Amino acid sequence: MQENPGSGEPKRRKAAYCVFCRIVAREEPANIIYEDDEMIVIQNVLRWVPVMLLAMKKDHTTQAELWDDIAHIGRIAQRIGAQLCPGGFRLLTNFGYDAMQSQEHGHLHILGGTYLGHYVG
Amino acid sequence: MQENPGSGEPKRRKAAYCVFCRIVAREEPANIIYEDDEMIVIQNVLRWVPVMLLAMKKDHTTQAELWDDIAHIGRIAQRIGAQLCPGGFRLLTNFGYDAMQSQEHGHLHILGGTYLGHYVG
Repeated sequence: MQENPGSGEPKRRKAAYCVFCRIVAREEPANIIYEDDEMIVIQNVLRWVPVMLLAMKKDHTTQAELWDDIAHIGRIAQRIGAQLCPGGFRLLTNFGYDAMQSQEHGHLHILGGTYLGHYVG
Repeated sequence: MQENPGSGEPKRRKAAYCVFCRIVAREEPANIIYEDDEMIVIQNVLRWVPVMLLAMKKDHTTQAELWDDIAHIGRIAQRIGAQLCPGGFRLLTNFGYDAMQSQEHGHLHILGGTYLGHYVG
């Protein structure tokens, strides 16, 4: 964990190995859908469904830390889901192996744009 | 929408046709996993995976109203998920037809107890 030295940006909790932290720091490319001081929403590189976004804090958090303070991200994610997916959308977080969590940096999936089907495999 | 006349319980927003409101009012049976003044966690009648719970406000809310004020329910759901599902768990809400929302009363799914597989069909 380290803090980035960006001049205009506030210091952030950052994990050097974390692709989401690198996206936040503009060290990796991503399609950024929404951004404010606290959080960012990016397009998932996966393309299982037409709308497949990831909402996360800019600070490196665990899923548990994200959900301990999910209020703002939840409201923004819901607004984006409703805007982009008039037929419905799904908000979800996967915790741990059984749920297919693949990134440590806490994130909320925003899924939609088609009939989504079951939410367990 | 009506308010229930229970003597010891506070008055609640209640929809007469809503099975979740009826469970909250003890007019329908359910396996209640957790309860406090604001919310309740019940076992889903579906049995797709070993742990399949529903966390909701006692007041009748939409999914949007639930997520506008998800903080407390999110923390409790996360705690229950971690307790019951050491291998991982999934928290999710389905909004609308495309996401397979079947009940109007806003609710958060807590899923786990096995490998859950994909989160879209």
